[in-house]
Amino acid sequence: MAKLVLIRHGQSEWNALNLFNGWIDTKLSPVGVEQAKKAGQAVAAEGIEFDQAYTSVLTRAITTLHYALEEANQLWIPEEKAWQLNERHYGALQGLNKDDARAKWGADQVQLWRRSYDTLPPLLEDVEETVTIDGKTYPAFDRRYYNVPEGELPMGENLKVTLERVLPYWDEKISKDLKAGKNVIIAAHGNSLRALVKHIEEISDDDIMGVEIANGQPWVYDLDENLKVVDKKILEA
Amino acid sequence: MAKLVLIRHGQSEWNALNLFNGWIDTKLSPVGVEQAKKAGQAVAAEGIEFDQAYTSVLTRAITTLHYALEEANQLWIPEEKAWQLNERHYGALQGLNKDDARAKWGADQVQLWRRSYDTLPPLLEDVEETVTIDGKTYPAFDRRYYNVPEGELPMGENLKVTLERVLPYWDEKISKDLKAGKNVIIAAHGNSLRALVKHIEEISDDDIMGVEIANGQPWVYDLDENLKVVDKKILEA
Repeated sequence: MAKLVLIRHGQSEWNALNLFNGWIDTKLSPVGVEQAKKAGQAVAAEGIEFDQAYTSVLTRAITTLHYALEEANQLWIPEEKAWQLNERHYGALQGLNKDDARAKWGADQVQLWRRSYDTLPPLLEDVEETVTIDGKTYPAFDRRYYNVPEGELPMGENLKVTLERVLPYWDEKISKDLKAGKNVIIAAHGNSLRALVKHIEEISDDDIMGVEIANGQPWVYDLDENLKVVDKKILEA
Repeated sequence: MAKLVLIRHGQSEWNALNLFNGWIDTKLSPVGVEQAKKAGQAVAAEGIEFDQAYTSVLTRAITTLHYALEEANQLWIPEEKAWQLNERHYGALQGLNKDDARAKWGADQVQLWRRSYDTLPPLLEDVEETVTIDGKTYPAFDRRYYNVPEGELPMGENLKVTLERVLPYWDEKISKDLKAGKNVIIAAHGNSLRALVKHIEEISDDDIMGVEIANGQPWVYDLDENLKVVDKKILEA
């Protein structure tokens, strides 16, 4: 039996500005920092002792993990960061205001991109592409992705494609820890966590898009040695 | 050629209270947080791009690393935590006020414990021992040390003994990264870093105790493929 705790990062600066965030590396807002700390306090109140942490290579998830673990006095546990746990890549939508996107493409199309399981957003054209917001230029990809095998860097993803890169990492790394009885915490993103929840709870393609994981709200699973869900609890944070 | 950056953690709560800290897991003071951020800004101003981070299993070093890397926009690099990079274990002195220790044992004896290369402090008696400060009880050792091989848990160390557990880790892990040309950042403690500096700069037993590494002040080495020092710079932070 092992415990798995999922935490979606706290509110980011861009969540607060209503921008499509995706792989752009924004920081937590002050509200987000508080959400992360409260998540750690809630987990600590459950008395969970972790053996291993996983997170993405995006700052908002990493700092959420760190604030939460520090509150739980467990910042010292081993941590592994993986691009496979990144948020869904939002393609050419990244950096756009959601209202501006609706004005340009129509609310129905934007809703489809946000809520359909298998509709792709408009794609980036190449890995050299940059995104400019408020006069600052962000690389579409940077050196943190140099270790990604050629051809695997996404130019834009739906949840289906996100799941197809999250699950091999789950199989290769995380599930092995859980099967060995280790308690695991994962701090990640709305869609990479949705992919995991879909897999763990065996949720259908149609139903998964209705599952909302709130910022900083810990989802706690008790899993048996076959990783079947024995118990599930969403903590008040 | 590779870059190695050493950062001693920022001021801790107990540094500020003048207590012997050692392996007791205290947090950064507000001053310490600012020192860590400035260290990261100084490193970022040098344009150093890291490939790997190392730190101890003590919160004040881990958070120093995280604040520094976040300021340098490099929080995403892989990090490994190791008890071998912990501060010198101060034995039964841990948790004592330095002035109280002087009143009890005399200033000369306390100075010897603090500044001699090979004099041991009064030792802890067993691994179950606890330390009580301000009504709070701290375990002398806790589950973060369960993976330490039997017989290797220190009950109290001088710099000589500290060096004898730092260097095997350096040889096994850190030096291999540097020889492979990776740029490495280590956030650790006054004495674990002294041990590394003694080794890297080939400083004598007599001279090393006079070497002071200030809280949050980055020491930057350029090392050749045999890990000989080509250049050394202490950054203003």
